[in-house]
Amino acid sequence: MKIAVVGAGYWGPNLIRTLTSLPLGLEVVVCDQDPERLAKAKARFASISTTLDYQEILADPKIEAVVLATPISTHCSLALEAFAAKKHVFVEKPMAGSVKEAEAMVAAATKAERILMVGHTFEYSPPVRRAKELIRAKELGDIYFISMMRVNLGLHQKDASVIWDLMPHDLSILLHWLEERPSRISAVGRDCVAGGIPDVAFVNLTFPSGVIANLEVAWLAPSKLRRIAVVGKRKMLVYDDTENIEKIKIYDQGVEFNDPEDFGEFQLSYRTGDIVSPRLPNTEPLKIEMEHFLECIRLGQQPRSDGASGLEVVRALDAAERSLSLGGLPVSLEES
Amino acid sequence: MKIAVVGAGYWGPNLIRTLTSLPLGLEVVVCDQDPERLAKAKARFASISTTLDYQEILADPKIEAVVLATPISTHCSLALEAFAAKKHVFVEKPMAGSVKEAEAMVAAATKAERILMVGHTFEYSPPVRRAKELIRAKELGDIYFISMMRVNLGLHQKDASVIWDLMPHDLSILLHWLEERPSRISAVGRDCVAGGIPDVAFVNLTFPSGVIANLEVAWLAPSKLRRIAVVGKRKMLVYDDTENIEKIKIYDQGVEFNDPEDFGEFQLSYRTGDIVSPRLPNTEPLKIEMEHFLECIRLGQQPRSDGASGLEVVRALDAAERSLSLGGLPVSLEES
Amino acid sequence: MKIAVVGAGYWGPNLIRTLTSLPLGLEVVVCDQDPERLAKAKARFASISTTLDYQEILADPKIEAVVLATPISTHCSLALEAFAAKKHVFVEKPMAGSVKEAEAMVAAATKAERILMVGHTFEYSPPVRRAKELIRAKELGDIYFISMMRVNLGLHQKDASVIWDLMPHDLSILLHWLEERPSRISAVGRDCVAGGIPDVAFVNLTFPSGVIANLEVAWLAPSKLRRIAVVGKRKMLVYDDTENIEKIKIYDQGVEFNDPEDFGEFQLSYRTGDIVSPRLPNTEPLKIEMEHFLECIRLGQQPRSDGASGLEVVRALDAAERSLSLGGLPVSLEES
Amino acid sequence: MKIAVVGAGYWGPNLIRTLTSLPLGLEVVVCDQDPERLAKAKARFASISTTLDYQEILADPKIEAVVLATPISTHCSLALEAFAAKKHVFVEKPMAGSVKEAEAMVAAATKAERILMVGHTFEYSPPVRRAKELIRAKELGDIYFISMMRVNLGLHQKDASVIWDLMPHDLSILLHWLEERPSRISAVGRDCVAGGIPDVAFVNLTFPSGVIANLEVAWLAPSKLRRIAVVGKRKMLVYDDTENIEKIKIYDQGVEFNDPEDFGEFQLSYRTGDIVSPRLPNTEPLKIEMEHFLECIRLGQQPRSDGASGLEVVRALDAAERSLSLGGLPVSLEES
Repeated sequence: MKIAVVGAGYWGPNLIRTLTSLPLGLEVVVCDQDPERLAKAKARFASISTTLDYQEILADPKIEAVVLATPISTHCSLALEAFAAKKHVFVEKPMAGSVKEAEAMVAAATKAERILMVGHTFEYSPPVRRAKELIRAKELGDIYFISMMRVNLGLHQKDASVIWDLMPHDLSILLHWLEERPSRISAVGRDCVAGGIPDVAFVNLTFPSGVIANLEVAWLAPSKLRRIAVVGKRKMLVYDDTENIEKIKIYDQGVEFNDPEDFGEFQLSYRTGDIVSPRLPNTEPLKIEMEHFLECIRLGQQPRSDGASGLEVVRALDAAERSLSLGGLPVSLEES
Repeated sequence: MKIAVVGAGYWGPNLIRTLTSLPLGLEVVVCDQDPERLAKAKARFASISTTLDYQEILADPKIEAVVLATPISTHCSLALEAFAAKKHVFVEKPMAGSVKEAEAMVAAATKAERILMVGHTFEYSPPVRRAKELIRAKELGDIYFISMMRVNLGLHQKDASVIWDLMPHDLSILLHWLEERPSRISAVGRDCVAGGIPDVAFVNLTFPSGVIANLEVAWLAPSKLRRIAVVGKRKMLVYDDTENIEKIKIYDQGVEFNDPEDFGEFQLSYRTGDIVSPRLPNTEPLKIEMEHFLECIRLGQQPRSDGASGLEVVRALDAAERSLSLGGLPVSLEES
Repeated sequence: MKIAVVGAGYWGPNLIRTLTSLPLGLEVVVCDQDPERLAKAKARFASISTTLDYQEILADPKIEAVVLATPISTHCSLALEAFAAKKHVFVEKPMAGSVKEAEAMVAAATKAERILMVGHTFEYSPPVRRAKELIRAKELGDIYFISMMRVNLGLHQKDASVIWDLMPHDLSILLHWLEERPSRISAVGRDCVAGGIPDVAFVNLTFPSGVIANLEVAWLAPSKLRRIAVVGKRKMLVYDDTENIEKIKIYDQGVEFNDPEDFGEFQLSYRTGDIVSPRLPNTEPLKIEMEHFLECIRLGQQPRSDGASGLEVVRALDAAERSLSLGGLPVSLEES
Repeated sequence: MKIAVVGAGYWGPNLIRTLTSLPLGLEVVVCDQDPERLAKAKARFASISTTLDYQEILADPKIEAVVLATPISTHCSLALEAFAAKKHVFVEKPMAGSVKEAEAMVAAATKAERILMVGHTFEYSPPVRRAKELIRAKELGDIYFISMMRVNLGLHQKDASVIWDLMPHDLSILLHWLEERPSRISAVGRDCVAGGIPDVAFVNLTFPSGVIANLEVAWLAPSKLRRIAVVGKRKMLVYDDTENIEKIKIYDQGVEFNDPEDFGEFQLSYRTGDIVSPRLPNTEPLKIEMEHFLECIRLGQQPRSDGASGLEVVRALDAAERSLSLGGLPVSLEES
């Protein structure tokens, strides 16, 4: 099988590394407009071939799929061309820069009867999958609320806010876990360093089931935090991606109804029971993700992080950004 | 000097302990409606005298000040009576259950020419004071944003939401540090366990200077978090009250303007420099607070956490609660 | 029942507090040579009576037991007098300053048919007890080795080395868990600050069963460490007493025999499985300890930390100190 | 310049990666007896050439230096042959399996007037270098003691004890910092899993200056620890290599002479002052090490981790192993 990776900038090389190291005998073609990047890629991955011309990729009938790791603004047009050429498409997150574009991509995939998969890598990571299993199996009980922090001293982007840069991760995890669309999103943020590009945002989501979520994303933070707390009726879970060993901790929680001290009174008291940190496989998420894409192509199957789920993430990003620009006014997602 | 502590329930004994252990030869009278509580207090603090009758306190001309540690709903009327009897008043936080009550208390103190101090204990704690000095001295540069978490598996209150129970701490710290009134507050919350009493809330504040803040408070959380991050233009600060030794860390932060890789481009890159955890005195905040109250009485001085600052905290609590009940709609504080 | 606490210095007040707060209606007499200390104790614990004269304690037929919290060098003579007066004795750790003295105390208790209990408080703490149960039930499998650190920036003692000051804790835990006497002890140490009084020591123990242990104790250390790792054949356990919540963690451990890569070769690979931090009751060890002493008196029962076990600890302390003074030469305990 | 890497097993590829990525246009030849390993290396590093025959390396006059990453038992003979062929030699740690071999290597290097450098990589790591500067500049004051832990659930070696496998790291750091040879070493250990091969060891060292050190190394441990505490008269330092950001913390420490409470008494009390975690460059130690080797060749300079220092490490390893087999009897190093 032959596959093309388009974009050999910041992220592309990770995809090339993953694809070339799979024991599947893939032929990998790398496409970029910058000859120097191609030369670098070729030096590092001896087995690849390269091209400066995307049309060459589209014209090659042996290439079954394209993997897009280009700037967000190019995702839609590159994907539409690929579908027109009957290629399957894997596109990095966020899938597109607007709801309209994302919708067009989903429609094009359907029409072309080709697979559209979005690079929500975290959905393929062992801790997120374990949490998903626990949530689905009602191990945690009904979910009350979720708190997410994704902050660090990061590189400022010059063409996307911190919402579009960091929040696709959290939103894809959140929607993957809860399997429902938020009904309302509000966001407060600020462009601390570079005018016009928010680099910190506090985002709140309300879901039809009652679940609420608080997301904090920032490129400016004293220390790196990657912490998600899921509070359920029966158990609670903390997923800390900066931990090496105990990435997930499950807190068994018991309610204690204390005897009333006075008649008419009662006290609800909670206690933490045992804490369990389950062993997780340490397979690289990117590897699982790429294998899943290839398998979906082979079996003609819908991928887990398909176009529809990518579209939901874009919808939420768009709502958050709109709320932010409205000074935190909640934006409803029902009608969108 | 003679002083009365009113309320010997959950918090009162801490105030009694502090007052009786000060080397000032204070005469402490304790008042509570429950004879059993008074008996317990007397057994533990041999030197105190006790009474079931608040009027007795008011009528005793030797008692100069009352310390109120009673339920929030009683604060206002007890304080007004005390001012009418020409006593100074120390009242636990939150100062009152409504803006109106808080305003009445401030007015009564002014009219009676007596001191009104609010128990914003954290303003007297060494880490908060150190942070205050750093902020005031512009060591951190202009403040960009503040993130605050105060969550744990706590006792559910039956007469107050988590906002009125936990957030007075964060708000008093925030207003103390920033010295400005928030212009807008929004809050999303949920009553997970007991109907009608929110036990988790995510609150966002916007300040006229541009600072934004995210506060998360919850009685339901897998682990206790008491973490505040202050991100400034020059330095950042983390105050973690669950840490025993390194409660405060100051992150020296440098901006690196990388050379553009292509003409027309530039990249903002931040780096963390040295991290310093300053030594802090380990004086008990409650002791500093009580000494401050007594000194203000002696010198006829305005206390740091005076009625006006208590009123600001109540205003913010009230706005947060209103926003929460409006589904997160931002509530403006300018006109309040 | 009437009981005497002898010594109202650094540690005594904790014992007085515990005894007076037990709901048993104990009459507590406190004895100390320093009138000021007695006055302080009386001010804090209104219900006690006091005396400057130990003989008065001995002569009072209503006093059934004495609790000794005096300097180590006085333990033996005070205990012997108490036994002669037919009192039960609780003595703080270490039980005595020499093996000879400890042996005399054990003999006197036997002769007087009175209870001798040693204040190895950690044996009554929930984490140590939980670990004991796990070890006894062979949950961890055969124990391979134990590593213990007890270091912090502490107060220098002027009459005892760090070995006699800090190591009774670790040794009593170790002997309690393993139920065997070490066959060999070696120690290296140094008197960094005050001449002649070692303030840091590294001690190694070898047990007949094969278990080896490494103990590090120091009054000079950058941060407080209270960490014990127990490595067994099936599981491992870490007990970190500076942790608030997860004091004990149990590591499930699996051996994986990897397939040989070449014939003739094999690879042993270990992996960590789930990690469990069990919920522990948070009863104060001192309370459990005192209740145990009183119960043993009432029922005429041998206490868990009896004179024999106190003697074993002294034997080990003595051997460690001898090895230290011999430059680390291993000292055998069989013949002692 | 042309250079040969001998051994393409577990560690060799890291050296090949480093050498081929240096911007020096090095020609790298890789030698191994296993054709499959060579094929793998060639696939990964396109620019290298390979050979099965070490003699070919020796015979190639263009090859100036050999880098040995072969099993310990082969180090000596390969190095002697290389010196005979007038090559410079970089040899992985430990330099040799015996003092005799190490001495022969040092002698051969001297005779051949070629450079002999030992792969004590940690000496080139930013945290170890920073600590070295602080120690040399007397920032910490006189060193009192050093405590080192290097434990984790590791792969069991089948031809070397944990002492020869893990302790070269600690010993090279220790000798590098202190610049003196230990006068006495004692070790207690155990072969828990595989008969005859100790997998845990507790090692104590005494230095002529008075410094003592405690080293704990184990392949069996619940969690990975890489912690070194250096306690000096003025400051203390903790180097924790498992920390991502705060690898080094420096504790400013003050002595407080409290006023005597009674005449004749005094109390030494220490306190921790500010804690500083300095920013460290995150250059890869292996890169610095390889560059240093190449520079020493170019300038005819003695490397920092030269044969003599490698020999000292082997001496200490040998003494530790002897003590271990003698049941912990201290072994003197003066006469060795």
